[in-house]
Amino acid sequence: MKERAEVELAAWARGLERSSLQEMLTATARPGIISFALGLPAPEFFPAADFSEAAARVLSEDARALQYSPPFEPLKRHVVELMKRRGVVCRAEQIFLTAGAQQGMSLLARLLLDEGRSIITEELIYTGFQQVVKPFRPRILTVPTDSETGMDVEAVSEILRRGERPAFIYCITDGHNPLSVRLHPSKRARLVELSEHYGVPIIEDDAYGFLCYEETEPPLRALGESTVLYAGSFSKILAPALRVGWVIVPEEMLLPLSVVKESSDIDTATFTQRLVTAYLDTGRLESHVENLRREYRLRRDTMLRALEEHFPEEARWRKPESGVFCWVELADEFDAFELFRKAIEHERVAFIPGQAFGVREGLSHAPSMRLNFSHSAPGLIEEGIPRLARVLKGSRPR
Amino acid sequence: MKERAEVELAAWARGLERSSLQEMLTATARPGIISFALGLPAPEFFPAADFSEAAARVLSEDARALQYSPPFEPLKRHVVELMKRRGVVCRAEQIFLTAGAQQGMSLLARLLLDEGRSIITEELIYTGFQQVVKPFRPRILTVPTDSETGMDVEAVSEILRRGERPAFIYCITDGHNPLSVRLHPSKRARLVELSEHYGVPIIEDDAYGFLCYEETEPPLRALGESTVLYAGSFSKILAPALRVGWVIVPEEMLLPLSVVKESSDIDTATFTQRLVTAYLDTGRLESHVENLRREYRLRRDTMLRALEEHFPEEARWRKPESGVFCWVELADEFDAFELFRKAIEHERVAFIPGQAFGVREGLSHAPSMRLNFSHSAPGLIEEGIPRLARVLKGSRPR
Repeated sequence: MKERAEVELAAWARGLERSSLQEMLTATARPGIISFALGLPAPEFFPAADFSEAAARVLSEDARALQYSPPFEPLKRHVVELMKRRGVVCRAEQIFLTAGAQQGMSLLARLLLDEGRSIITEELIYTGFQQVVKPFRPRILTVPTDSETGMDVEAVSEILRRGERPAFIYCITDGHNPLSVRLHPSKRARLVELSEHYGVPIIEDDAYGFLCYEETEPPLRALGESTVLYAGSFSKILAPALRVGWVIVPEEMLLPLSVVKESSDIDTATFTQRLVTAYLDTGRLESHVENLRREYRLRRDTMLRALEEHFPEEARWRKPESGVFCWVELADEFDAFELFRKAIEHERVAFIPGQAFGVREGLSHAPSMRLNFSHSAPGLIEEGIPRLARVLKGSRPR
Repeated sequence: MKERAEVELAAWARGLERSSLQEMLTATARPGIISFALGLPAPEFFPAADFSEAAARVLSEDARALQYSPPFEPLKRHVVELMKRRGVVCRAEQIFLTAGAQQGMSLLARLLLDEGRSIITEELIYTGFQQVVKPFRPRILTVPTDSETGMDVEAVSEILRRGERPAFIYCITDGHNPLSVRLHPSKRARLVELSEHYGVPIIEDDAYGFLCYEETEPPLRALGESTVLYAGSFSKILAPALRVGWVIVPEEMLLPLSVVKESSDIDTATFTQRLVTAYLDTGRLESHVENLRREYRLRRDTMLRALEEHFPEEARWRKPESGVFCWVELADEFDAFELFRKAIEHERVAFIPGQAFGVREGLSHAPSMRLNFSHSAPGLIEEGIPRLARVLKGSRPR
């Protein structure tokens, strides 16, 4: 009998498995679970009716809305205006439209990263970025993160001074995922200075930067335009399923970005680029984002109050100034993965154990939890945090 | 004075330039040009009003339409039904949703192709696929194409028999771009047999397969499901700007595909996946595609008649059974790039010189033109072809 032929994958792809994180996420999707696990926006605030109007307008006005056509210039002009509110001055010629920040960072990594080259990141970062670099098998040089002031920029300086020339530095300046810290203003200036001095670019991940609840600082891109490659997105301030984002880069990078995007999925104006533009034309984004900030701030404060009231005294967290996560460090006696399993099984509440964000094995950190506060209504947060606290109490060794 | 730091690109990306093809396309976009250059659908047939309705329905029914959520299962079930009309039996578990066929092939190449490994293609193929493989610097082993029966499958057999084990064979079975030929039925069976015997997968590019104007054969995927990796798209039968396509693969490839897509742009149900589903739910696709076939057949026949009437006697073409291109070979005395320039300047009509599709330097082919017949209304075709013929006559050496 003839054996069934099997397709052989490229070497780097042979070990691919669903990550433990993804396994966990499957568990959290069960009905009845209160989930603080994912960084989801609250669907009740999606401007669905506005989009419905926008779609009707776009589809009746111009048949090119559905045709191959160049990346949509009017959206670039909107992004220029939007960035001003973050304190960034840029030109439409520096903006490259993408299918979300993830695609932006993926295209940048492909343009910058030769296989086996080094990169600098913090020890705990967004797992999606780890996936981006994985096929290039980079040497990942890590620096610690201070829980009050963010990335250890002097450690970055040390690495560069000893002669390392990484392909780039990855930095989540505001609304850090998962650490919910923001980079201190003095460190911002220093990091950009280092980047320019050594000619090492920075990939600045600003997916959550517009969701700020206190006074804000401009991102790194405001301090340096020749080496800071900025990735932004409408996913968190409008809606993820539209898949519209952008990067801001030196003008000469637009051509190679376009070539790389063309090979990925054709560099064309998408229907959703026009949809977002039609929505932005109405001028409603500013009040929409104001509303999101108000609602998410309320949820954040609800979570902080509940943590204060119910969590053990030795647990540590700080008030997130931006983003959608609260980072809680626990006493050493706990095992966060074990807590996760118990929380799902006994209390039907979910979070992500902090270690899931480690960029490599062997980094030692306090047991920790990443808790999302944007997705659950205040009532659910008030119900879910005490449940989590019960898991902690029940797990305390006697 | 401090020099402005410049971002250094990865080695493979340093030479990236806009291709001569892209330069030409810029020229063809000038107003007043009759363009037979690109493979664009005719925008007048886009079902824009139906999409407007579908958008309103999707946005009012379910807030998850705008949220991160798993790839959209109802669309996979529609694709299963759709594929039956191409003679392909498959299951939803074998379908992976993509942002168009280009993304499908790009993800497949990343999963299959180790840097520097070989692949088999014809000598003249879709330039977008050449872009897909370029970063991997593959050794491209080419086989000729017969103008009546398609890819030289015995040449494929010869390569495999001498011990080469390429990462895959790339095949455009129907509506060949640019050669407008279809693979002969007996060659289909033989190619799948070779693929299974040697365990070398086939990437089957079926972007144009549903646009057939005569009797059709099922694609390769109907003949073998373990090694044929099929890429399909709604771009040509519905609308390109939606960016919705699919691949059909052995079930065990869905997980690695999902991991690779996640790192590219997050593997999530997009708003446009739901939009296409809502349109398909109305049952209107079948008559829509029937209408497209009728209209494009009319345009094809208009072009063939005009070629017959106006083109020099030695020019050679055949009637395309599918796809959106007509391939015209000219007498050796012509230089197709020179013709292109004259056609744009003197007659304001555009096409793509055939050599632009060559996978490597030094392949010798008759001077040729790829002419698109789907985008221009019959009246424009009747006006444009005589103009092109005038350029040929004016370019004839005395």
